Amino acid sequence: MHAFRPAGAGVKTGLFQIIFESDTPLGKGFDIALAVLILMSVGVVLLDSVESYHQRFGVFFYYAEWVVTVLFTLEIGLRVYCLEKPRLYLKSFYGVIDVLAVLPTWLALFIPGAQTLVVIRLLRTLRLFRVLEMMTLVGEGKLLVDALKRSRGQIILFLFAVMMLVTIFSSLLFLIEPAEAGFTSIPKAIYWGIVTLTTVGYGDIAPVTPLGQFISIMIMLTGYSIIALPVGVFSVEVINTLRDERYSDEACPGCGKHQHEKNARYCKFCGTWLDEESLDPNAVEQADS
Amino acid sequence: MHAFRPAGAGVKTGLFQIIFESDTPLGKGFDIALAVLILMSVGVVLLDSVESYHQRFGVFFYYAEWVVTVLFTLEIGLRVYCLEKPRLYLKSFYGVIDVLAVLPTWLALFIPGAQTLVVIRLLRTLRLFRVLEMMTLVGEGKLLVDALKRSRGQIILFLFAVMMLVTIFSSLLFLIEPAEAGFTSIPKAIYWGIVTLTTVGYGDIAPVTPLGQFISIMIMLTGYSIIALPVGVFSVEVINTLRDERYSDEACPGCGKHQHEKNARYCKFCGTWLDEESLDPNAVEQADS
Amino acid sequence: MHAFRPAGAGVKTGLFQIIFESDTPLGKGFDIALAVLILMSVGVVLLDSVESYHQRFGVFFYYAEWVVTVLFTLEIGLRVYCLEKPRLYLKSFYGVIDVLAVLPTWLALFIPGAQTLVVIRLLRTLRLFRVLEMMTLVGEGKLLVDALKRSRGQIILFLFAVMMLVTIFSSLLFLIEPAEAGFTSIPKAIYWGIVTLTTVGYGDIAPVTPLGQFISIMIMLTGYSIIALPVGVFSVEVINTLRDERYSDEACPGCGKHQHEKNARYCKFCGTWLDEESLDPNAVEQADS
Amino acid sequence: MHAFRPAGAGVKTGLFQIIFESDTPLGKGFDIALAVLILMSVGVVLLDSVESYHQRFGVFFYYAEWVVTVLFTLEIGLRVYCLEKPRLYLKSFYGVIDVLAVLPTWLALFIPGAQTLVVIRLLRTLRLFRVLEMMTLVGEGKLLVDALKRSRGQIILFLFAVMMLVTIFSSLLFLIEPAEAGFTSIPKAIYWGIVTLTTVGYGDIAPVTPLGQFISIMIMLTGYSIIALPVGVFSVEVINTLRDERYSDEACPGCGKHQHEKNARYCKFCGTWLDEESLDPNAVEQADS
Repeated sequence: MHAFRPAGAGVKTGLFQIIFESDTPLGKGFDIALAVLILMSVGVVLLDSVESYHQRFGVFFYYAEWVVTVLFTLEIGLRVYCLEKPRLYLKSFYGVIDVLAVLPTWLALFIPGAQTLVVIRLLRTLRLFRVLEMMTLVGEGKLLVDALKRSRGQIILFLFAVMMLVTIFSSLLFLIEPAEAGFTSIPKAIYWGIVTLTTVGYGDIAPVTPLGQFISIMIMLTGYSIIALPVGVFSVEVINTLRDERYSDEACPGCGKHQHEKNARYCKFCGTWLDEESLDPNAVEQADS
Repeated sequence: MHAFRPAGAGVKTGLFQIIFESDTPLGKGFDIALAVLILMSVGVVLLDSVESYHQRFGVFFYYAEWVVTVLFTLEIGLRVYCLEKPRLYLKSFYGVIDVLAVLPTWLALFIPGAQTLVVIRLLRTLRLFRVLEMMTLVGEGKLLVDALKRSRGQIILFLFAVMMLVTIFSSLLFLIEPAEAGFTSIPKAIYWGIVTLTTVGYGDIAPVTPLGQFISIMIMLTGYSIIALPVGVFSVEVINTLRDERYSDEACPGCGKHQHEKNARYCKFCGTWLDEESLDPNAVEQADS
Repeated sequence: MHAFRPAGAGVKTGLFQIIFESDTPLGKGFDIALAVLILMSVGVVLLDSVESYHQRFGVFFYYAEWVVTVLFTLEIGLRVYCLEKPRLYLKSFYGVIDVLAVLPTWLALFIPGAQTLVVIRLLRTLRLFRVLEMMTLVGEGKLLVDALKRSRGQIILFLFAVMMLVTIFSSLLFLIEPAEAGFTSIPKAIYWGIVTLTTVGYGDIAPVTPLGQFISIMIMLTGYSIIALPVGVFSVEVINTLRDERYSDEACPGCGKHQHEKNARYCKFCGTWLDEESLDPNAVEQADS
Repeated sequence: MHAFRPAGAGVKTGLFQIIFESDTPLGKGFDIALAVLILMSVGVVLLDSVESYHQRFGVFFYYAEWVVTVLFTLEIGLRVYCLEKPRLYLKSFYGVIDVLAVLPTWLALFIPGAQTLVVIRLLRTLRLFRVLEMMTLVGEGKLLVDALKRSRGQIILFLFAVMMLVTIFSSLLFLIEPAEAGFTSIPKAIYWGIVTLTTVGYGDIAPVTPLGQFISIMIMLTGYSIIALPVGVFSVEVINTLRDERYSDEACPGCGKHQHEKNARYCKFCGTWLDEESLDPNAVEQADS
């Protein structure tokens, strides 16, 4: 990370350390302050959307929004100032979100109504993951994310097969059910199919003919049973991720084979003594004591 | 697969390679083009079922449907032409779907209204799995399918027990609940029972008497708890499938026992050196280096 | 099982073999015929409960019911005849169900309306498990049942904790929500709480106040997360059940320890050669060849 | 526990043993009697909240409530009497609940209407866990609780990510959907989002525009798939908890390494004989026989 720090000491470097890094007290403080500000700005957007609160506290919300907007704009300014290639930041994912978060309020000065787009600001909550990174939670979350990445392919395939199944069954119900039951088009029937298969079941659309209800039962039992698939796949990937953490990447100096547990002292294939480096540091300490 | 290729070179063989195989660039291209055409035809069927779109773009959809029908008919013709035993194809699962997909449009020339059956065409989406086969996704999907096959018996038994349970409880609610609550017959009560047990819960039928609601609670808690069964069974089958992939099928030349890991060099039962062929090729490379 | 067979050959013994056992062709045939008859009688009860079918086919259903009742009564008679201690049968679980299944129709001769209780007959479907016993399905189902028995204690504890949680939260909503929203009493609020926690969500009762909706969110997220508990516990019990099947019950003749895998030839604790009997029969064959 | 017992024999010590401990017959009896009384008082609160029961049995419920209140007050008095530091008890979690459980009835003597707060008494059900502690259930429940503690961090992180996702998608639906569909504010839209993602699906609020329904499908499929995360994590933690119970905490006297199975006799790393104490008592018996 330090490689990206602008050369030459001074205000720029100091600001960079505070804004973009979090290994100094000021850097940590900045991240936490930003998190609090984002949560507060989200709170204002949420409460302002409630009609009764808007009427009573509308003026307060209006000023709070401007304070947040000015602070966020200032933050963008500082980020641009202390970077050597600010264009890359402005084109990056977070950069675009940062700018979009302040744009609606500024635009509202010229275009009335632009303020309704202020909900875009909610996307800034994604920055909160930065704060989580500093907490122990992320160490644990890494397992979740790793296992999710490994099972991604299979879960996509699963969802694809589910979609095909739902499309075929839903079209059947579009033919069988009367329009009064809510099955007015195939896309609407597919919406109902997903609502049913995922066991959400709003009830805004529901089959009324015996045949339609029979096919619905098939969809429900399918949805109820195949939830086992993503769960099973994900569980196994969690186990695999944990196992990979247990095995060393080092090869045996005798036979060149891999797959030694991190606390192994001898190669399990040829019996060669595995050199110190492949040992788990903790195990070394114990052995020497 | 090549064994099924018709003898004698020429146009037929070339067509066969393009249409039925996918190891040539043209063969792959054909599969992808067919997938795109199927998805487009499905899109037309879906959008045409929306009343407002039908009124505005109905004519366009009409022509699009004819273009798709002609192309699909042409495809069937080519398949029949380049096969030696076209009857077997026409009687096969995919053959029947292929013909059914084009029949409604042709029939509509003679029988008005036959066009409504064009949704049958959605079944052609099953052909899309052919394209998936070429992608890495299927390698991952094989694990899912294998584990599903292994757990099939138990999941069927589970669904059977669930159905019996639901039938008994639903009949009770048919006796308890007034007809106004929607429990007008036992089959309808069973429909409600499945809606409840699978936690779909439309709410079109719901118990209104205290006793009925108490029995409903039993069904809900049962449904909520026993989802653990298919999930647990499937998870274990995924683990078993993975383990089977890790163990070699080869027997030890010394004692004849099985269950050696694929990268094992010595029999774990009697210590005999396992011959090269039973070794994992990757492990050999590492051992030689 | 043969120990329970009445002494002395003749008609009684023959009937016993047919009705209570299934290792003869006639015994198997009887079980299957009974299963078919039960399913048919269930079908008649189900269809007769549909008003429109009752009006059209009511007479046919009436006669079908009498045929089934007479056949079932005959079956009870034969069971009583060929048993030495028929009282024990009549007091047993299945005996009571068998009698209850035919009682309503006979009673209807004297008490008009007793026929509505004919749904009790559905309990006879439990006899179907007898047929399943002969099929391969049950071998697989045994794993399910074993794992379910092992995890029973924990799942009951889980349901108990869930009930306490729901009671406390539901009472809160009873205080918060207006009666118009459907929260007319605490038992009704608990019904709503279970509907919510199990993610059924009929929508016949739903919170309308912001605070009530906030507490509902807590219940939903809890219900969504803690489904992990029964699933996790059951999965582990399935794995444990499978492991127990893999280990031999035999102790090592050298050191007396247990926990040897069924295909092990030497004690893993002291190296003593395990005698032939503890070997997996399949492994012996391979070793001799 | 005995360390906390007040010094000096006599009535106080006897009462302490009965009320706070459960290793004497009287102590067990007290715990069970208290559990029954709590369940009965909960039953009265539940039934009294039903309007029709209140009108018919209101007077009985009134007296039952007073009996329970007096008994509970007496119990508090005894607890205070036999403790040396009663203030610590009154400030403790259970102490506060105990007092809150009797307060409403006493307050109702002076302040009319205070009785509606009697539902607070339901919190006393938490004391029931004390009774469960004596039963075998808790031994099994410990596994559940341990695994839940281990997976807590990851499940909180999971719920946090879910909340962020729901907030962003729900705000989108607030912008897209008309107010008539129920999306009157962002907090209400978030309520709907949680109802949808957790697959509860009341149907009191449901999207009506095609775009809104499309985004809903995304939320449903997400909710349906990511249920795999808490389940997978919890399953793995159950397995880890079980494994930890299998491994000894003792270090090898030869090489100082850990991770020996409880029934191991020799260090698996250096072959040193592990001293008796680290052996499983059961294994010793078998070895000596």
